Amino acid sequence: MTIAMLINGEVPADLTRALPANDRGFHYGDGVFETALLQEGAVRHLDAHLERLYRGCETLRIQAPPRQVLVDEIARVSANLRSSVLKIVISRGVGERGYRPGAGAPTRIVATYPAPEHNPPRGLRVRWCRTRLGRNASLAGIKHLNRLEQVLAQAEWSDGAIAEGLMLDTEGELVSATASNVFIVRDGVLLTPDLRFCGVRGVMREQVLRAASELGIATSEEPLWPSDVEAAEEVFLTNAVRGIRSVASLATLEWEHTRIADRLRAALGA
Amino acid sequence: MTIAMLINGEVPADLTRALPANDRGFHYGDGVFETALLQEGAVRHLDAHLERLYRGCETLRIQAPPRQVLVDEIARVSANLRSSVLKIVISRGVGERGYRPGAGAPTRIVATYPAPEHNPPRGLRVRWCRTRLGRNASLAGIKHLNRLEQVLAQAEWSDGAIAEGLMLDTEGELVSATASNVFIVRDGVLLTPDLRFCGVRGVMREQVLRAASELGIATSEEPLWPSDVEAAEEVFLTNAVRGIRSVASLATLEWEHTRIADRLRAALGA
Repeated sequence: MTIAMLINGEVPADLTRALPANDRGFHYGDGVFETALLQEGAVRHLDAHLERLYRGCETLRIQAPPRQVLVDEIARVSANLRSSVLKIVISRGVGERGYRPGAGAPTRIVATYPAPEHNPPRGLRVRWCRTRLGRNASLAGIKHLNRLEQVLAQAEWSDGAIAEGLMLDTEGELVSATASNVFIVRDGVLLTPDLRFCGVRGVMREQVLRAASELGIATSEEPLWPSDVEAAEEVFLTNAVRGIRSVASLATLEWEHTRIADRLRAALGA
Repeated sequence: MTIAMLINGEVPADLTRALPANDRGFHYGDGVFETALLQEGAVRHLDAHLERLYRGCETLRIQAPPRQVLVDEIARVSANLRSSVLKIVISRGVGERGYRPGAGAPTRIVATYPAPEHNPPRGLRVRWCRTRLGRNASLAGIKHLNRLEQVLAQAEWSDGAIAEGLMLDTEGELVSATASNVFIVRDGVLLTPDLRFCGVRGVMREQVLRAASELGIATSEEPLWPSDVEAAEEVFLTNAVRGIRSVASLATLEWEHTRIADRLRAALGA
């Protein structure tokens, strides 16, 4: 499933024995990651991905690798690839037993994986997840390696016709889908959860907000609830790898409109 | 720092290249762990540790290894050791990219580490942590691998005279210390946070509650707040490796009493 991988700049001889036994990524989820779309040898929105990666490292006080190191390694793993998924992981690296971070060097993975095979931009069926997202503003926004809530949420269904699940936080506020951000349209205004307590600030989410602004579409990041989804004229999900996907149904709700999403897809080529 | 380690029952040839590159423990913190005290070749409270490990695997729907496999591997890593720390980690193992759990086999680490060198049972200095614990009842109690909050909390101080930090949840309720449970005594009653929203149900915490009951000390698991700590007659921390440790000071607060803790230490030999 991995196409190519570098760990700290080296090709692992054996993927089944590749990471340090005492790596803090494994023991505590102590690190951050990015997944991006590679097309024709170029990473879509590379600057935005690296910016979020560096913001995450700063939040966790992990020493981030120089940009040029990542750019060079991305070139190495993406050689001759047309369309694929780039994943970067930076963990705090090897440490002594115990939560306290030491002075060790971070562990760095730069790898490519196959692009999703089936990725229709419209007609998505989604569900509500029972698993909730805990609120913790100090970790909100960044893409850290503590992802058990998303794992449990995706384990809730196996029906391949359901593409995604919407998640609420523990207070019942709408946050995102398991691996996508969510947008709704109400009275022609484009709304998305403000993520002040949890959720990941998706790279495609930022692109959509910027593009909407340039197209003269009013936007707002604000607290949203399931009732806002139920009253929405249009709903779509965003994700750096899968782009902008219009939702057609959610439980008993159905949507026909894809107008705003279509304009954004055209503007962003996503 | 590692004394001995088995990964899936085998001694890794090279600890720096030992775990699978696509292990979900590393990528999502998708797993559980235990740390226990090994004394004279025996694991203290082994049954309670394995019970929590199995409960965690059940919560995450990870296939737990048979008890006899763990018992045999513990014997292998603890041969000839007098006092040390046993750590067991069970991750969901190698998976495809993406949060959804697949059908792969779990990864299992059984390892020993040196026991803490300096571990006085009284006179502990502790602090309040700024980092808060997010509330999520679905993950409360188990010892999973999503531990960034504890990592950030321990990174808050470097003064070696401060042994631990007390943590509140995002609503300001007392939960635990970064790597210990907390008990307070009020009007002769032994109180500890009920952990209904977050925190780990420590093995020593359970032993203390049981022993107190046998000694005729009234106990209660209930919501507690900083004001309860400030009004306490006695405060102590519990941890399977470090035992029962009486707190002497917290910011400007000081405690002299260690009476209940002393009785529990004597009863538990902890």
